[in-house]
Amino acid sequence: MELETVSTNRSHGGKQGVYRHASLETGTPMTFSVFVPDHKEGVRLPVLWYLSGLTCTHANVTEKGEFREACARHGIIFVAPDTSPRGDDVPDDEAYDFGKGAGFYVDATQEPWARHYRMRSYIERELPEVVAHHFPADMARQGITGHSMGGHGALTLALRNADRFRSVSAFSPIVSPLECAWGVKALTRYLGEDRAGWRQYDACALIEDGCRVADILVDQGTADGFLEEQLKTHLLVDACEKAGQPATVRMQEGYDHSYYFISTFMAEHVGWHAARLRA
Amino acid sequence: MELETVSTNRSHGGKQGVYRHASLETGTPMTFSVFVPDHKEGVRLPVLWYLSGLTCTHANVTEKGEFREACARHGIIFVAPDTSPRGDDVPDDEAYDFGKGAGFYVDATQEPWARHYRMRSYIERELPEVVAHHFPADMARQGITGHSMGGHGALTLALRNADRFRSVSAFSPIVSPLECAWGVKALTRYLGEDRAGWRQYDACALIEDGCRVADILVDQGTADGFLEEQLKTHLLVDACEKAGQPATVRMQEGYDHSYYFISTFMAEHVGWHAARLRA
Repeated sequence: MELETVSTNRSHGGKQGVYRHASLETGTPMTFSVFVPDHKEGVRLPVLWYLSGLTCTHANVTEKGEFREACARHGIIFVAPDTSPRGDDVPDDEAYDFGKGAGFYVDATQEPWARHYRMRSYIERELPEVVAHHFPADMARQGITGHSMGGHGALTLALRNADRFRSVSAFSPIVSPLECAWGVKALTRYLGEDRAGWRQYDACALIEDGCRVADILVDQGTADGFLEEQLKTHLLVDACEKAGQPATVRMQEGYDHSYYFISTFMAEHVGWHAARLRA
Repeated sequence: MELETVSTNRSHGGKQGVYRHASLETGTPMTFSVFVPDHKEGVRLPVLWYLSGLTCTHANVTEKGEFREACARHGIIFVAPDTSPRGDDVPDDEAYDFGKGAGFYVDATQEPWARHYRMRSYIERELPEVVAHHFPADMARQGITGHSMGGHGALTLALRNADRFRSVSAFSPIVSPLECAWGVKALTRYLGEDRAGWRQYDACALIEDGCRVADILVDQGTADGFLEEQLKTHLLVDACEKAGQPATVRMQEGYDHSYYFISTFMAEHVGWHAARLRA
């Protein structure tokens, strides 16, 4: 379980690192970033996962997310994986919303995607082992959040793994891939036509099918150009209400889909996770 | 005095905009960013200028600077200009430390630079008029800060214009272009061989020559790879001590030259300026 250090920078009273390792799941080198606040020798800190959106790598949130001050204050490790396998051998599509940068946090079953596009198992199983091995992380205290496609990833991972994640939140998530063009395109090509197999990758469907978490926090900008056609926040509100799933969904007036929005509410999300991870 | 809006995004309870205008000083279109916190109709807010370093545009600090939360909290407008003229007609050099991205906040006197490289007059005279005209800025309350080459810019602008700026700080500034390779290269080519003319562009020389400001705040990382050969913070400490110029120079253990460093101390700098601009 070798780990290559790409870079480290001291920041906000901690260490922001970027690392690379050979992933068995994706069959490619994978890059991710980890922020570790200063802490007492031997102490293990809770972990907050952040899954990024379409077209992003680890770098977008690492540079623009404004999470470090809050993570340092609360003593939380912040892990930001990539959004897909990378490299010349990995099949791709010229669209921004499929292929590289658009792994959708699924294990693909269809060719030519099945070999490398295994972001579900990568995030669910492989990367946590790497993090546990190389960083002072308390894997009994994990939370997860994400943005857009990564908000979809965070919600579905948490709903499927309620024993692993103590807390879950999302920024402008795709709440139901079954019900939007981004999701239908990606799931059809990664998973095939049978929609029954898609439900494990759809937060609303998982809630309908009985999955539960203690609570959900969602922030969504009202000026987000993707709200109506792709994100459809109201479907999550409806699914939670119908199922009795506690959720706090905040419509934020005038905010869009960018990191200018995410960074505004990041510290609140970190604090929300910290309250649950440090309880 | 036309202003083109390139983009606006709601962020941290304010508006982050990017704007473009035709500069008479540089003879080119110039792009800059402005963050305006929400405020009561008719109120004018203090202004904090941020001058960027080598290779940067307005975008680096706008995306990575983590200034908006503090500016919104203190009610401060944040203005980030570009670092040089831009465009195909502007002479350039293939080096990263001269020409485009490296205007050094001087008015060049040498050819072929003299026509376009007028960043001193652009920042000292032209852009303030644009800002005063188009934004709810109280130009009687201005502060200035910057990073590296922009720290040099901030210190020299403030020392030459103590009546305009009520507060000045810097992140890892070039404190004496006369005494480092970056400075000697740039000033020789922009201003010619006569070093007497360089002193107005050297913070230490200006202090030696009698310029004073109320106080100076400087943060400098000890792990900054440019500290020893280019930045030479100790020269500023010496000049201030010798001249009785009040200054707080903080060596920050383990921090480097990047925005990971700047963003760590940005909120403190904004607070420091706010205390003086709102006094």
